[in-house]
Amino acid sequence: MYEPITASSREPHYLQMSAEVLPAIPRQPLQVVLDNIRSAFNVGSIFRTSDAGAIAHMHLCGMTAYPPNKKLEKTALGAFDYVPWTYHATTADALERLRGEGVVCVAVEALDSAVPHSAFPWPRGSAIVFGNEVTGISPEVLSLCDATVRIPMRGYKNTINVATAFGVVMYEILRQWESGTPEAGD
Amino acid sequence: MYEPITASSREPHYLQMSAEVLPAIPRQPLQVVLDNIRSAFNVGSIFRTSDAGAIAHMHLCGMTAYPPNKKLEKTALGAFDYVPWTYHATTADALERLRGEGVVCVAVEALDSAVPHSAFPWPRGSAIVFGNEVTGISPEVLSLCDATVRIPMRGYKNTINVATAFGVVMYEILRQWESGTPEAGD
Repeated sequence: MYEPITASSREPHYLQMSAEVLPAIPRQPLQVVLDNIRSAFNVGSIFRTSDAGAIAHMHLCGMTAYPPNKKLEKTALGAFDYVPWTYHATTADALERLRGEGVVCVAVEALDSAVPHSAFPWPRGSAIVFGNEVTGISPEVLSLCDATVRIPMRGYKNTINVATAFGVVMYEILRQWESGTPEAGD
Repeated sequence: MYEPITASSREPHYLQMSAEVLPAIPRQPLQVVLDNIRSAFNVGSIFRTSDAGAIAHMHLCGMTAYPPNKKLEKTALGAFDYVPWTYHATTADALERLRGEGVVCVAVEALDSAVPHSAFPWPRGSAIVFGNEVTGISPEVLSLCDATVRIPMRGYKNTINVATAFGVVMYEILRQWESGTPEAGD
């Protein structure tokens, strides 16, 4: 499905695996784009959750860690052998490619103007975009997304870990696809 | 609301803080019970998510780390100053106390017989119980719970990180309370 990316400044840009080598399970029409995630532990945890959700593909961009990587292995617990992934030198590369394929790219970012993640009607064939733990998603990357959603925050510190955020959004999307509609309001 | 627990074998059993010392925000009628969580990093992340959800109280039981703890601080990012918590020597202590107060205690565990977490009609006044990363929730603790739910798994490895699992279940509960009803089916 995906070929190695060649127009890039960082090695390796290979495709580690593809869905073809896996025994058949139904994969969800959902992809994830990780925009310069700082912690390999977070990436590993997102691999693990992506396997549990049988999502279609992970796109690891920029400084985001990719296999083989010891820290990533520690939290992925082997899950990177079970989720197709591609490394992209830049997040813009990944998003331009996905949009060219008709994938709806949705940023998850704490913007007041964003729709709560559970109120957004997630199309089948979406990609969810998560940004760096400190700096978030860059304005350039946000401008390449079709929509932005936020996870509602009700407390004092009001941030959650990016791997937790991924699980929250992924399971809401799968719930909607199984049950019908999003919820109105926040 | 909670007094220190005295009938116990491990120090400290004090109440670190209470809701009274916080500036007023609406707290959700939801508590979490952590049954012998191995990783302080996971506990810290759960503190952070609990703050974001403004949940009422965290119960840290057995070997579960509690503040002050350097590893916990690293992932809580200060959130343990914003969520009321109590340490209990045993999870049974915590559950007996909660059930005595009329709180509905719901285990989250990968049992085939369990209801998917998004199909369970979560009562206001629930406590969600999460178990050890390796051994899960003990049979004794399960027997003290009113119900068991599971997070649907669709992949190969089929486990997710406990802090991610907490975020998934917490946000589903808050979604239901805001929007009305659970979804039918898995």
